[in-house]
Amino acid sequence: MPSIDINCDLGEGIGSDEAIMPFISSANIACGFHAGSPLLMEQTVQLARQHGVQIGAHPGYPDPQEFGRRELHLPPESVEALVLYQVAALAGIAKANGAELAHVKPHGALYNQAAKDRVVADAIARAVRRFSAELILFGLAGSELITAGMEAGLCVAAEGFPDRAYETDGSLRPRKLPGALIENPNDAAANGLRLAGEGITIRREDGEEKIRVDTLCVHGDSPGAVETAKALKAILEKNQFKITALKKY
Amino acid sequence: MPSIDINCDLGEGIGSDEAIMPFISSANIACGFHAGSPLLMEQTVQLARQHGVQIGAHPGYPDPQEFGRRELHLPPESVEALVLYQVAALAGIAKANGAELAHVKPHGALYNQAAKDRVVADAIARAVRRFSAELILFGLAGSELITAGMEAGLCVAAEGFPDRAYETDGSLRPRKLPGALIENPNDAAANGLRLAGEGITIRREDGEEKIRVDTLCVHGDSPGAVETAKALKAILEKNQFKITALKKY
Amino acid sequence: MPSIDINCDLGEGIGSDEAIMPFISSANIACGFHAGSPLLMEQTVQLARQHGVQIGAHPGYPDPQEFGRRELHLPPESVEALVLYQVAALAGIAKANGAELAHVKPHGALYNQAAKDRVVADAIARAVRRFSAELILFGLAGSELITAGMEAGLCVAAEGFPDRAYETDGSLRPRKLPGALIENPNDAAANGLRLAGEGITIRREDGEEKIRVDTLCVHGDSPGAVETAKALKAILEKNQFKITALKKY
Amino acid sequence: MPSIDINCDLGEGIGSDEAIMPFISSANIACGFHAGSPLLMEQTVQLARQHGVQIGAHPGYPDPQEFGRRELHLPPESVEALVLYQVAALAGIAKANGAELAHVKPHGALYNQAAKDRVVADAIARAVRRFSAELILFGLAGSELITAGMEAGLCVAAEGFPDRAYETDGSLRPRKLPGALIENPNDAAANGLRLAGEGITIRREDGEEKIRVDTLCVHGDSPGAVETAKALKAILEKNQFKITALKKY
Repeated sequence: MPSIDINCDLGEGIGSDEAIMPFISSANIACGFHAGSPLLMEQTVQLARQHGVQIGAHPGYPDPQEFGRRELHLPPESVEALVLYQVAALAGIAKANGAELAHVKPHGALYNQAAKDRVVADAIARAVRRFSAELILFGLAGSELITAGMEAGLCVAAEGFPDRAYETDGSLRPRKLPGALIENPNDAAANGLRLAGEGITIRREDGEEKIRVDTLCVHGDSPGAVETAKALKAILEKNQFKITALKKY
Repeated sequence: MPSIDINCDLGEGIGSDEAIMPFISSANIACGFHAGSPLLMEQTVQLARQHGVQIGAHPGYPDPQEFGRRELHLPPESVEALVLYQVAALAGIAKANGAELAHVKPHGALYNQAAKDRVVADAIARAVRRFSAELILFGLAGSELITAGMEAGLCVAAEGFPDRAYETDGSLRPRKLPGALIENPNDAAANGLRLAGEGITIRREDGEEKIRVDTLCVHGDSPGAVETAKALKAILEKNQFKITALKKY
Repeated sequence: MPSIDINCDLGEGIGSDEAIMPFISSANIACGFHAGSPLLMEQTVQLARQHGVQIGAHPGYPDPQEFGRRELHLPPESVEALVLYQVAALAGIAKANGAELAHVKPHGALYNQAAKDRVVADAIARAVRRFSAELILFGLAGSELITAGMEAGLCVAAEGFPDRAYETDGSLRPRKLPGALIENPNDAAANGLRLAGEGITIRREDGEEKIRVDTLCVHGDSPGAVETAKALKAILEKNQFKITALKKY
Repeated sequence: MPSIDINCDLGEGIGSDEAIMPFISSANIACGFHAGSPLLMEQTVQLARQHGVQIGAHPGYPDPQEFGRRELHLPPESVEALVLYQVAALAGIAKANGAELAHVKPHGALYNQAAKDRVVADAIARAVRRFSAELILFGLAGSELITAGMEAGLCVAAEGFPDRAYETDGSLRPRKLPGALIENPNDAAANGLRLAGEGITIRREDGEEKIRVDTLCVHGDSPGAVETAKALKAILEKNQFKITALKKY
């Protein structure tokens, strides 16, 4: 029986954290830099625990004004330090609540830069590895962050997006292009099933390549978030997938 | 023909600012302390201008981690200074975009404290008055902020909430009580029509009192926000209300 | 041979961290809320290690605009969470640099409120205790924070201020009164020697009481900071004190 | 009788604002992004007024953790918006205190980037010009910011640094090189006199060029700040300079 993880960004002070918990297996909790507060982190850790959802850190740039969506181009030692700081803060809060931090997924501009820019990706991987070799690093499937994580000796999880269309080269279709967003919950769920089963397909003149997907992201703040999560879980289970968080192997 | 204003909090980096613009007459734009950024303020000012929507400042506590929802109990001179600062910042951005700042509505914990605590209310009113006697101050209908604004020599606008139930003493039913939130867009619209036509009813043993409502607030970040705004505008217009921003008299 | 600790607030982006290190035994490192950044925390941890100075967390209110000097009156669960968060962040950074967090000293308004307000003091003590029973909590000698720490089962360190005059009731003379600040480095050093040897004297009609002082604070950002630290260390050593950080007993 | 301006960065929550006021003619007041708060801005505006010191805005990057010293590489429209925002905020606070904003001097990394990077310089100049054509823009003598300001139709003030050594190409000697900082107050004052009288000398094989200096910066947060300001004012006045703020011509 194949297994797949469903993750969601939570504790950002928006969206319906409690409503989405039953349909996910991993929670990426904002760490106070792009969103979230110490108290909200405690509450979200407790909520995740109650639902048996695995706890991860969701570090971002120190930019609440733009919700961490602005590319800041900081020196790598600053990126490394701010990831280490946020991971440590959430790990401590988790531990004080009898839970354990299991994974790290960068947020927003930090995630996007780490997908393409190896210097940023390495800084993140170093920070996570220095904090603990037991943590799993989440990154865009096929991205520099996945490579950086593996080379740093970390377990990695390749992420796919059910509500996004992919280009034939395996990249996400830019949001501004038509058809980039799959808004209908059932269509997104079907896309998620395909990503879980087949991975992402890269089409070349001389054939195809598949990139494995370990975890599917549902967005907590879009209008149909809960419906999409529910439909995704249902179609995966109907197709014999076990929804479960990734474990350090 | 009676007139009524419909206002919405915008530029907070959440919600559907563009979708809601056609149904409102006043935009309260976040000023970077609880949410928003200078660039987002520029963009939201431009968006409001394009839709002929009146521009207001929406100052909050310097608390992005909790979205300005935490009561900070600052000294009144700090409250006064932070309102003055945010109002001035948005006024400058509006002016640089060929628009004009017309009103001020405090956000979150600052709004709630100003409703009950005259010291906070006076600090806000002083800040607005010091910046300009031309500005209109929005506050909860029947609250201390309305009184403080009038005594400071400002025009005031009494605000009602279509998606909230009112107690017989004229106060908002606390969110935690059953029936406090009116989630169905049509029910909220009907409630808004009643608030616009009759005001808020205070029932006493010896009779009733009515509190006038000048502006109706629609929430931009709730799931049915756009539907509610649309239904509210439709029912008001069907009942011969003119939807229009308040003007300094 | 009696021993005494000399502590200093560091990593706040002001003052002369490197110049003062040779004269202190404990460094209280700002954790990014009132001052400091993740990178500066790393650098200050490394600097403290090089000088054999014990590492402590210096958590403050999330108020960089006022440097954590404004009393925020947050609910106790918020205070508890923000202390836990900052302590965890610095502990993680220390560990990633091969060092260990040994103590916690609240900053500014948080420190002052915790001296008088038992609710705030308890929130801080709970946060520290939940993170680790091995940490030593620093508080004003004779204050509520010392009591709260002991009742929470923590080791505590009673702090005295060589550059401040004390009233006959054992409290610090308010800064605005004449003679409150002892600016001459040699006078401050002599005052520090007295605090280390005799503690703080409380004079009552029926006699005197002494409050023990475990650690002396030197301010890193005052003009004569380095001179004071140097003079204090010299006079203490001349009088047979061993300058050493406190250890968990 | 020649005239020269002496400016100082103030309202940053560090340094000795009050002590330095008697020796300067222009105050650059921090606007809450890299340092400062609305209340501190009000207080510093009032302090400057009392001393007859001209009021300017000192906008920086939204980075209190690193005191605005980190290069953020934001898109030009973000830079433009954040300068406009901060200038407007301080102008409003000045006006509410019966004073007037006269100049703008960017802070830290923003200042340094604007000296070399024309895109950043233009963004700043556009923001200032959009707010008011009456403002004077301060920039490093001979830098891109001076050129950008002039091309935007603004009055500009070329700044020199008495406590810094200059290279033969007219640039500031990098802080890390020996002799870069002139710490002795009298030496710095003599250097300031030379800058005021002769400007900055650029030596080329085929001769010399002089760059005019309109305003001399004294640093408020260095140990000998007040002494340097005092010595600078004294030597300038002894040499028949009139210390006075720049006026829009």
